[in-house]
Amino acid sequence: MLYSTTDLLHLRDFYRRQLLDNTVPFWFPRSYDKEYGGYLLMREANGTLLDDDKAVWIQGRAAWLLSTLYNTVSRNPEWLQGARYGIDFLQQHCFDTDGRMFFHMARNGQPIRKRRYFFSETFTVIAAAAYAQATGSNSMASFARALFGQCLEYASTPGLLPSKYTSTRPARGIGVPMIMLNTAQQLRATIGDERCDAYIDQWISEIETFFVKDDIRCVMETVAPDGSIIDHIDGRTLNPGHAIEGAWFILHEARHRGNDERLTALGCKMLDYMWERGWDKEYGGIFYFRDVYHKPVQEYWQDMKFWWPHNEAIIATLLAYLMTGNEKYARWHRQVHQYAYSHFHDTENGEWFGYLHRNGTVAQTAKGNLFKGPFHLPRQEWYCLQILQEHLEKKEQNAARKAGSSL
Amino acid sequence: MLYSTTDLLHLRDFYRRQLLDNTVPFWFPRSYDKEYGGYLLMREANGTLLDDDKAVWIQGRAAWLLSTLYNTVSRNPEWLQGARYGIDFLQQHCFDTDGRMFFHMARNGQPIRKRRYFFSETFTVIAAAAYAQATGSNSMASFARALFGQCLEYASTPGLLPSKYTSTRPARGIGVPMIMLNTAQQLRATIGDERCDAYIDQWISEIETFFVKDDIRCVMETVAPDGSIIDHIDGRTLNPGHAIEGAWFILHEARHRGNDERLTALGCKMLDYMWERGWDKEYGGIFYFRDVYHKPVQEYWQDMKFWWPHNEAIIATLLAYLMTGNEKYARWHRQVHQYAYSHFHDTENGEWFGYLHRNGTVAQTAKGNLFKGPFHLPRQEWYCLQILQEHLEKKEQNAARKAGSSL
Repeated sequence: MLYSTTDLLHLRDFYRRQLLDNTVPFWFPRSYDKEYGGYLLMREANGTLLDDDKAVWIQGRAAWLLSTLYNTVSRNPEWLQGARYGIDFLQQHCFDTDGRMFFHMARNGQPIRKRRYFFSETFTVIAAAAYAQATGSNSMASFARALFGQCLEYASTPGLLPSKYTSTRPARGIGVPMIMLNTAQQLRATIGDERCDAYIDQWISEIETFFVKDDIRCVMETVAPDGSIIDHIDGRTLNPGHAIEGAWFILHEARHRGNDERLTALGCKMLDYMWERGWDKEYGGIFYFRDVYHKPVQEYWQDMKFWWPHNEAIIATLLAYLMTGNEKYARWHRQVHQYAYSHFHDTENGEWFGYLHRNGTVAQTAKGNLFKGPFHLPRQEWYCLQILQEHLEKKEQNAARKAGSSL
Repeated sequence: MLYSTTDLLHLRDFYRRQLLDNTVPFWFPRSYDKEYGGYLLMREANGTLLDDDKAVWIQGRAAWLLSTLYNTVSRNPEWLQGARYGIDFLQQHCFDTDGRMFFHMARNGQPIRKRRYFFSETFTVIAAAAYAQATGSNSMASFARALFGQCLEYASTPGLLPSKYTSTRPARGIGVPMIMLNTAQQLRATIGDERCDAYIDQWISEIETFFVKDDIRCVMETVAPDGSIIDHIDGRTLNPGHAIEGAWFILHEARHRGNDERLTALGCKMLDYMWERGWDKEYGGIFYFRDVYHKPVQEYWQDMKFWWPHNEAIIATLLAYLMTGNEKYARWHRQVHQYAYSHFHDTENGEWFGYLHRNGTVAQTAKGNLFKGPFHLPRQEWYCLQILQEHLEKKEQNAARKAGSSL
């Protein structure tokens, strides 16, 4: 057995220690903006502030993290107060007059940029839902549910949001069903929402029907409306880390439904396909983009190693291993865990670097920017801690039951 | 003397050979789309078609190149016919009903994407102007002039084009005055336009006043409307290759005006400042982005080496050397020329790779995509050939005159 119970205990302790003694303290309390609300998260390697702007996605994700730690790890009042800074900033400043949210704000809450997506909204939903659970506030729960309803409308009404493209070559992306699936899972786990289960089924079915290609062992990122491959540069571009994130959202659903076999198999094969295509056999780590037919990818930085696909792969491989006992997943987990903690982790200042060259050297040293902040890494450490904890407890109970029955 | 007359002769022959025996034949005639017009330019390293979509910028640039070769290098009827494919496609398919141009087209001329910039228009202006010169067509010249007038309006009317940003943090970029300066120079050189000289003065003055910072020896990419530095990630981001391109547009203007001293000094100092900031002393080559205060740049691929900044730097250093005789520029020219031709040039298939890792290894092997095609490299080889040719002819005339007067 690749991972003994002692190994899993050590892993659990490792993730807890990293989360609570390294990752979270890098960001908090220093990032709370007590003057304007929200968080100051664009930081250099050593924590020095690089920019006092605020990325709305990351404001929501940080408020989600703090609320979730409060709900599941420890009733630390600093985290609850910390979550409040984010929630206030989001509610007070980040909505435009048309009800849509901005993307990029000045420190004082003035908007800099609005985009054509609704991910600011989905991250605000999970933040507000977790915060509503933490505080027991009904009005916050209503706010989260109403905003989720808004997201449902954006997701299901073509043309409601302005499009980057003309109608010449219609396409569907895996991003929307994936993010909606995870948002609904979070909503269900925190304040409950009776709409969630049916929607989750629908989004998983959308992913399975249109994006998962068994014949070529691949999870597509973008396809034509009927699921066929768009044989142009953009249509051929795969994002292995993103598909692996989708794989663990589905494995999580399978686990929530008592290890549902069909969903477990679906999540595992998505992981299998994209590990095969994404893992760099020469230097280790996960490539950012690949071409479905192994042609050159247009994005010149396609072979870089970003932090977040490694967070998603650490979760997916560990979850697949704990659910199936298949040693392949333990081997992959060890591989990606060791690669990631030895290449991305900043042993001097804590937290991870975000961007490595293909060969594993650091390409850019900032810890936070418009797209990176306290989310993928702490979520990974928190999630792995949770599933290992539950796995070990169940094992102990089984052992105790066996011991009891053998008395 | 770093470059003897023999060296300059060899350089001239080298650029001519590369242009006519290597770069141009990589693209043409195989890229002419005789069925739909325009060019099929998105190609792999060996020339295999990667995608039959058409990038409007590159369609215009390729038509400019073919017309310009016809006008200045040789009356090759294939080039004239080739230019026609691009001009036809641009005129027949690439304009939207509001008079603005698209950015990305399907092969058959259906639009895929329109963007908030007017660079499709400026590249169409230079293509049409060069083609009008080649054919003597008055209606084509009128078309070029009218579209240039449209560009003038876009450039000078804030709010006429939709903006990516809110009005919270107004900014001006060096891109518009630079591209307009070069467009006007092309217009003047081909079909003439009496508006050009005054506008050129205005854009050079805009660049000098707002973007060139002597106190910190820097050319900014983006500044506040009053020219002050916007101390946020985007505002601090420098693009050395772009500023060096701006430097040679200004040196070109100085040369056009009989080696105007003030403009020569301006162009040279822009080159000095950005060579200092952009040249990678460890691995060679020009970094893509730098931070004005040497902080981490947000773009993770900031330390990659792209083909086109090297084309611009080869032109700028050679032009500065020929105009000033300052050996520093010959040294820099040799440095960047040798780096570029030994790292970017694909000795097997011809043309250049576009994208190297910082350490000089190839990151992506495609020769053409939405942003790369037959432009920067052939323009560099063509321009260097022209200025070396003129320099050597003048030298010969001077020698003959001297020999004559000493008889």
